[in-house]
Amino acid sequence: MKVDLKMLAAQLGVSVSTVSKALRDSHEIGANTKQKIIAKAEELGYKPNPYASYLRHQKSKTIALVIPKIDNSFFLQIIDGAEAIAAEKGYHLLVYVTHEDVQKEISIIRHLQNGRVDGIIMSLSATTSDYHHLNECMENGLPIVFFDRVCHEIETTKVITDDFACGFKATEHLIENGCKKIVYLSVSEKLSIDKKRMQGYQEALGKHDLLLNEDNIIRCSNDEKNNHELIRNRLLADTQIDGFFSGVESFALSTYAVCRELKIKIPERIKVICFANLATTDFLNPSLTTISQPAYDMASLAATTLFKHLDKKRSQLYNENIVLKSSLVVRESTTKRNKEWI
Amino acid sequence: MKVDLKMLAAQLGVSVSTVSKALRDSHEIGANTKQKIIAKAEELGYKPNPYASYLRHQKSKTIALVIPKIDNSFFLQIIDGAEAIAAEKGYHLLVYVTHEDVQKEISIIRHLQNGRVDGIIMSLSATTSDYHHLNECMENGLPIVFFDRVCHEIETTKVITDDFACGFKATEHLIENGCKKIVYLSVSEKLSIDKKRMQGYQEALGKHDLLLNEDNIIRCSNDEKNNHELIRNRLLADTQIDGFFSGVESFALSTYAVCRELKIKIPERIKVICFANLATTDFLNPSLTTISQPAYDMASLAATTLFKHLDKKRSQLYNENIVLKSSLVVRESTTKRNKEWI
Repeated sequence: MKVDLKMLAAQLGVSVSTVSKALRDSHEIGANTKQKIIAKAEELGYKPNPYASYLRHQKSKTIALVIPKIDNSFFLQIIDGAEAIAAEKGYHLLVYVTHEDVQKEISIIRHLQNGRVDGIIMSLSATTSDYHHLNECMENGLPIVFFDRVCHEIETTKVITDDFACGFKATEHLIENGCKKIVYLSVSEKLSIDKKRMQGYQEALGKHDLLLNEDNIIRCSNDEKNNHELIRNRLLADTQIDGFFSGVESFALSTYAVCRELKIKIPERIKVICFANLATTDFLNPSLTTISQPAYDMASLAATTLFKHLDKKRSQLYNENIVLKSSLVVRESTTKRNKEWI
Repeated sequence: MKVDLKMLAAQLGVSVSTVSKALRDSHEIGANTKQKIIAKAEELGYKPNPYASYLRHQKSKTIALVIPKIDNSFFLQIIDGAEAIAAEKGYHLLVYVTHEDVQKEISIIRHLQNGRVDGIIMSLSATTSDYHHLNECMENGLPIVFFDRVCHEIETTKVITDDFACGFKATEHLIENGCKKIVYLSVSEKLSIDKKRMQGYQEALGKHDLLLNEDNIIRCSNDEKNNHELIRNRLLADTQIDGFFSGVESFALSTYAVCRELKIKIPERIKVICFANLATTDFLNPSLTTISQPAYDMASLAATTLFKHLDKKRSQLYNENIVLKSSLVVRESTTKRNKEWI
């Protein structure tokens, strides 16, 4: 049986309002009465209703994490980081997945504005190019902190990684290991992170006097089978292709699958580098060279920034980019195989 | 600017209580007035406060997913499945991680009983052996549906897989491929899933007249470094060990790492089979033979069962086990290498 204010009042022979005021430590109630009421509430295991408390304080102590998908280790670490900070700060974490669908994103963001959450941390869907719903959300007083796939058009804090530098570094790493015809596997031309990585790719090609062939930029999607086909067709169309730079781990795995199918050896004929946070990279055949983003830290920092704002320790969310560094980890897929393991 | 009842009332020249009653379709308000108020509310984009609605209906339209950890692909698919069903049914999903700590589990479960959620789907922490907090939760009217790591002592629905059969099948598969001294890597002796898998392991050893050596049951933990040491020491202590059956993917990866370190070849000298849901199993070196649990379906079914109960389509949660089948996928780590890829 649930203990409520009414039951406490009946047991103590006082009014509900007296109990309520005492439990809120109101000055209207004497110290003795207060003590008796608190003791009885503890004895019976009374738990205040969080939504009633919300209505008084206009705080739900809940934030939303909105992510585009949930099928890779990057977003696994993102949930882990956000949950850890939320738990530490006494907040609750709602998780929503847009499945790369801007319509779902709009619907989720609109729905959250009715007071269910105090703030949002999010990463854009691959199909989002209009930001009205996000502007509206901020204007309605519901703050958003972005991470990774950010929206530069909105004035708030964004936690990102050094995408341009990493795109450059990844491409130059392939070139330094002998690649001359490098394919870039793009997540979505609508995302700023993708544009920056691609700019880094183009800049590295230019620096090393390699021609940019538009056919070597493959627009992948959520459709794994289609990605597989696109990669396969490109490899069959140009047998001189010798490198792949992939924006996400699933495209790199598709590349592995296509190469296996076509009996093309990695890294002997094709070298592969990829943005990834997999626990298994070391044990892949061949082990995969990666650009590894600090996903856990990105989510922690986005959540911490939001909580500072919500707890009024920081009155506004500054319009700034917080840039964390990703790291290049060289493994067999871009260099040579460890003979021990061949 | 947020549109509230007060603003609507001011614009319409009526009282707040009239607006509130009209929007709740009260019989106290005439049809004409009602229509005017609803039209104005729509025009200004009024959104009802979900917590106020909660206080009226005693429904938060929110459920909690409580999981022991978030570092592997099984729980990634669990979150994916639970989120998908919640979104479909118009529920919100709070995610909590116990980090295998029963104290955290108790604190989360207690905290949820104040009305924040309508129900819970959960998988036990590896250190939970007393179920008072879970019984208390059910008695307080907050329903729990368990999945995978279930608590048989509590009368509710549990979604599980055929753990005994899988333990038997995995062990027999190793034996049929020539293994005679098989190590079982256990998640936690407190968990029923672990006990059942181990019973399957023991039964298969018995059927094939292989002796059970207690030293070959290694109690792993959350501490990766320690697991690595335990596996390493066992391999050094008995050079005749020729098989590993692991309860979770991280222990199998530790086995891979130890074997690499000690220059022990998989599958030539040691064969490895593991419960895992990794996207990369096919591309591991060697590719990993797995027992693959239908994680997404388990979470979907647990959530669906809970929602049926909450929406009163099913008045009680039957005390039953819903058993989904896991599948054995044979790859190189228990058989032989695909020469193409060596």
